[in-house]
Amino acid sequence: MLSFECDYNNGASPKVLERLIETNMEYVPGYGEDKFTSSAVEKIKAAIGREDIDVELIVGGTQTNQLIISTILKPFEGVISASTGHINTHEAGAIEYSGHKVLTIKEKNGKIDSKDLESYLDAYHRDGNKDAIVYPGMVYISHPTENGTLYSKKELEKLRGICDSYSIPLFLDGARLAYGLESPSTDVTLRDIADLCDIFYIGGTKCGALCGEAVVFSGKRRPEHFYAMKKQHGALLAKGRLLGVQFDALFTDGYYFQLGRNAMEKAERLKSILSSKGYRFYMESPTNQQYVVVDNEKMKKLSEKVRFGFWELVDKDHTAIRFCTSWSTTDKDLDELEKIL
Amino acid sequence: MLSFECDYNNGASPKVLERLIETNMEYVPGYGEDKFTSSAVEKIKAAIGREDIDVELIVGGTQTNQLIISTILKPFEGVISASTGHINTHEAGAIEYSGHKVLTIKEKNGKIDSKDLESYLDAYHRDGNKDAIVYPGMVYISHPTENGTLYSKKELEKLRGICDSYSIPLFLDGARLAYGLESPSTDVTLRDIADLCDIFYIGGTKCGALCGEAVVFSGKRRPEHFYAMKKQHGALLAKGRLLGVQFDALFTDGYYFQLGRNAMEKAERLKSILSSKGYRFYMESPTNQQYVVVDNEKMKKLSEKVRFGFWELVDKDHTAIRFCTSWSTTDKDLDELEKIL
Amino acid sequence: MLSFECDYNNGASPKVLERLIETNMEYVPGYGEDKFTSSAVEKIKAAIGREDIDVELIVGGTQTNQLIISTILKPFEGVISASTGHINTHEAGAIEYSGHKVLTIKEKNGKIDSKDLESYLDAYHRDGNKDAIVYPGMVYISHPTENGTLYSKKELEKLRGICDSYSIPLFLDGARLAYGLESPSTDVTLRDIADLCDIFYIGGTKCGALCGEAVVFSGKRRPEHFYAMKKQHGALLAKGRLLGVQFDALFTDGYYFQLGRNAMEKAERLKSILSSKGYRFYMESPTNQQYVVVDNEKMKKLSEKVRFGFWELVDKDHTAIRFCTSWSTTDKDLDELEKIL
Amino acid sequence: MLSFECDYNNGASPKVLERLIETNMEYVPGYGEDKFTSSAVEKIKAAIGREDIDVELIVGGTQTNQLIISTILKPFEGVISASTGHINTHEAGAIEYSGHKVLTIKEKNGKIDSKDLESYLDAYHRDGNKDAIVYPGMVYISHPTENGTLYSKKELEKLRGICDSYSIPLFLDGARLAYGLESPSTDVTLRDIADLCDIFYIGGTKCGALCGEAVVFSGKRRPEHFYAMKKQHGALLAKGRLLGVQFDALFTDGYYFQLGRNAMEKAERLKSILSSKGYRFYMESPTNQQYVVVDNEKMKKLSEKVRFGFWELVDKDHTAIRFCTSWSTTDKDLDELEKIL
Repeated sequence: MLSFECDYNNGASPKVLERLIETNMEYVPGYGEDKFTSSAVEKIKAAIGREDIDVELIVGGTQTNQLIISTILKPFEGVISASTGHINTHEAGAIEYSGHKVLTIKEKNGKIDSKDLESYLDAYHRDGNKDAIVYPGMVYISHPTENGTLYSKKELEKLRGICDSYSIPLFLDGARLAYGLESPSTDVTLRDIADLCDIFYIGGTKCGALCGEAVVFSGKRRPEHFYAMKKQHGALLAKGRLLGVQFDALFTDGYYFQLGRNAMEKAERLKSILSSKGYRFYMESPTNQQYVVVDNEKMKKLSEKVRFGFWELVDKDHTAIRFCTSWSTTDKDLDELEKIL
Repeated sequence: MLSFECDYNNGASPKVLERLIETNMEYVPGYGEDKFTSSAVEKIKAAIGREDIDVELIVGGTQTNQLIISTILKPFEGVISASTGHINTHEAGAIEYSGHKVLTIKEKNGKIDSKDLESYLDAYHRDGNKDAIVYPGMVYISHPTENGTLYSKKELEKLRGICDSYSIPLFLDGARLAYGLESPSTDVTLRDIADLCDIFYIGGTKCGALCGEAVVFSGKRRPEHFYAMKKQHGALLAKGRLLGVQFDALFTDGYYFQLGRNAMEKAERLKSILSSKGYRFYMESPTNQQYVVVDNEKMKKLSEKVRFGFWELVDKDHTAIRFCTSWSTTDKDLDELEKIL
Repeated sequence: MLSFECDYNNGASPKVLERLIETNMEYVPGYGEDKFTSSAVEKIKAAIGREDIDVELIVGGTQTNQLIISTILKPFEGVISASTGHINTHEAGAIEYSGHKVLTIKEKNGKIDSKDLESYLDAYHRDGNKDAIVYPGMVYISHPTENGTLYSKKELEKLRGICDSYSIPLFLDGARLAYGLESPSTDVTLRDIADLCDIFYIGGTKCGALCGEAVVFSGKRRPEHFYAMKKQHGALLAKGRLLGVQFDALFTDGYYFQLGRNAMEKAERLKSILSSKGYRFYMESPTNQQYVVVDNEKMKKLSEKVRFGFWELVDKDHTAIRFCTSWSTTDKDLDELEKIL
Repeated sequence: MLSFECDYNNGASPKVLERLIETNMEYVPGYGEDKFTSSAVEKIKAAIGREDIDVELIVGGTQTNQLIISTILKPFEGVISASTGHINTHEAGAIEYSGHKVLTIKEKNGKIDSKDLESYLDAYHRDGNKDAIVYPGMVYISHPTENGTLYSKKELEKLRGICDSYSIPLFLDGARLAYGLESPSTDVTLRDIADLCDIFYIGGTKCGALCGEAVVFSGKRRPEHFYAMKKQHGALLAKGRLLGVQFDALFTDGYYFQLGRNAMEKAERLKSILSSKGYRFYMESPTNQQYVVVDNEKMKKLSEKVRFGFWELVDKDHTAIRFCTSWSTTDKDLDELEKIL
């Protein structure tokens, strides 16, 4: 059956797998002290074009969000997120488990509007009862967002400016960053993200790795004793090489970007196919997630031949569903899909 | 350079790697809902010889300890451990981070003596102030222990009996279980462990996998909503297949036991070599970790040709060091080591 | 200066103080094992008219909310609250500190509308991704609410019915319960609350005590080992008598209700005064908190002669302010206020 | 019946009660912003003789320990305590509930020996695996200790010196400080404690108040946003005046010390009585807690006429019991006790 339900439904991208095979029997120290991890870190720095950053490799996305947010926030602080932010909706309360409140701002196309952020922070700081209200101590955004949308460079600059005014860090969840960076409609580069965010991560799991997210701390903002805190959170991988080798492969000869590019080329073709077949888009997405509204009969029929994601109920007869391309989508997959749609 | 410092210093064992390669491009659902995971679970049940158990695959050891202990304990309970237990010493406070106290009993050869356990529990329940003292709500043991020692079947039965008297679960950390099960001096089988413990895990990371621990809940003791709690702890792997495929390979045709056997055969030979070369053993270990005392001069010289583990300072001139064999140790490695020692 | 800013700005109500003085030199055991606490518990049971309940006396409101919510919820659960609920707004993240998410429903007059609750729960249970979403495990309401409003008996019955359908407990924060019970427009009795809620508390701090909230568990729902959990949360008072004596006095000869009645009689007169002076009410409140909109000039002038509460900015020239009556408000206070307004 | 079981078995000391009565109907702001609290803080500063300190009033002892330790420690740190320390034994895991490990040093007379502390810290910092071990980030001592013993000035200076070498704070739990300061055998003054400790508290609950502990932060070490963290921990009292008025009375005209003095004079007489009656002391205590060993028959007989504390079983026929004097013990009480013993 055709698989368009998500971007983490197969194994490693070819060059990542190859490198795992090649290095398998080399003996190296554990816990990320290995040469593959060092090499991956250097290549990530080179890809960004900055030396004054720290990089940490972590196994999974929710784990990364929990680890970063809870070690960066002070105990009395909470994190601001769009209402649709992954940390607010689909992480089973991982941030609250770590003791911190997620403070929500109503999303606009899955994003935080800078005016809304400014109003929120301004209102907090002018509130006579603010000492009994959770201090907004960080801004969390995702890029691409959960709705597949992207921030423009100007939008990021505005958020950055507001964070500066209030001296709070800006954290970007880049679980699908490859797809965001290679979207034909973006004007945001990897370097821009490093310059405009205090912390962000380069998603591996959804962009060609078996697992792994590379966290980048700009300007030396990595919390002290971070190694111990990884251990304390159960987030320190014994065979750290597994992450090192994968990111080393992803950041050799621009492979990460190439994987993103494939997904985006296929996404553009997917959009044309959907459009030409008369499907109604549920929302506008410039990345690898495409959402359309179908009637439930149609949905049932489609589901016999292709796997797609359930997004949400639209009305009693219609449902929004999601098709994802990825680093591994081929034109052959799309040819087949075209026949089915 | 020769590598005897630990049992997680290279990649995947051959059949595990092979299976990862073979299955790489198959499309399967995420989050452990894949067919490889189902197959691994069935094979583990078969290896144990019981159907009435639940199996969960988790990425790492500290993560597993934290997840299991904190979801099994009630909020007012703590976990009993030998003073040398991994959760008490080298997990950076992961159990306390989850809100629970580690209650220690002085170790004997790295183990909890059943008499000491009985005294501890008896004293607690007779204490007039017990309501202000943390309730001992679980017993944690490791097998092999951090000192490389093993419980006998009789010792496990005694601990089980005491746990039954006080209605508290017995949890066994089997991070190195393959080596314990294949030790020539053990009388404990995998089935015994499943019958005598409420929860235990079958270590993958140190026994031939890239990562992964298979948690077994005997008699349907898996906490309700465990899936959500994995997510909440950042312990739910998106590409669960990575764990499924590996444990599927490890439990095909007794491969896990075979890997353990190799390590133990090599450990026996290592012991003879050390012994014949006149090394003094620091403690007696029937498993793959061997500890000897060397003078510091000697230690320095050795370290130029072989990697070993620092264990602890013995006096100002002597140090205890550790040599580990593993699933991958070869006779050629030992031949070379023999020349160096 | 006149004080109408809140209902906890002076000491103990006369009979409470008297009883503290009388019993001061009696020797009794600590930690709530004293005869005053037992007597208070019996009197509260009598006032409610049920024997099958447990009562616990706790020092403060936020402490009570945190203790109750975190010991009743399972680790994977969150608590539903109106967006204006105290636990969501003015407790500095105390619920999240205990590891649980506050799940919000948009308030209607400070209350949860039963239709909104039903939709929320229904949507959760039909969501295909619900295992990654925090499980709604309790409903929190306040009565009177933070806006001074009250649930009708019918509204409470509806909430109760929904909670029953989903098998989740209903928890009522009664920090100002005396004023709610004595409001001329309520049809809800103390007995009704005990019958319709699983857990609720009878506020002392804001209703005539120096400190103290009496938590009532209907139908024996008190968590096991609650004593140890009070200690663990820092919520076990050594001289438990301080709470026992006060609630014993409050529940002798209907004193608690009498205190509430005074506040409500004065609140009715306050409303007439405000109305006859032409003040515009910001929202309709049937309890002891009254909110009016004033222009900022007027507010400044008033503040020279009377203390009131800042509520919120209405527009750049107007502010909503709050006047509270309490158990201690006198007609003389109101005579003076009338002159000033 | 005579009451010698503890020092918190009656109400407030006379001048504290008097002051509560006098101030009862004064209208003041809540949450510790009242004039009584300010006055108490000023008087405590004067009693200490330093201006560069911060003072916070908290309701109870376990609450204070949890609040202070968890807000001073960084997330990866634990607190060092004597094995007999209250936080390690009788607080139901309150420190671990807040996420931090209690690191124990074997007690000597209920105290931490400075040599043992130095060894502990030295060993930690030289350990090759220290990043996986909880960082010792604070030293907790009690004075008087749980065994009734006291540190000498020289002992405190040594601990201070070690804490300075390792740049970690020294925190003193003074739940019974009045009795320690007035012991005839101490050479430690209140000023010494403020100069030698980074944080300490002056116990109210056990020294003449209904409740309350005054935390002193020397040299401006109060954590930022401490108000919000009090709220978040459920430790912010709405009617903060209750604590303010009491400490204001305790620190007027040396009343706190006078209450301590009474307990110590009575303790000295109690010691003579016990000694002259031939009782065997279980351990040597220079403060208000006295421990003797009695045979179980005798214990039973005594318990018909006087309340004392159970301490611990000595052997199957003998038990250690505790008699406490307090601010309220009279010579008449001791006359009666003498007849009974």
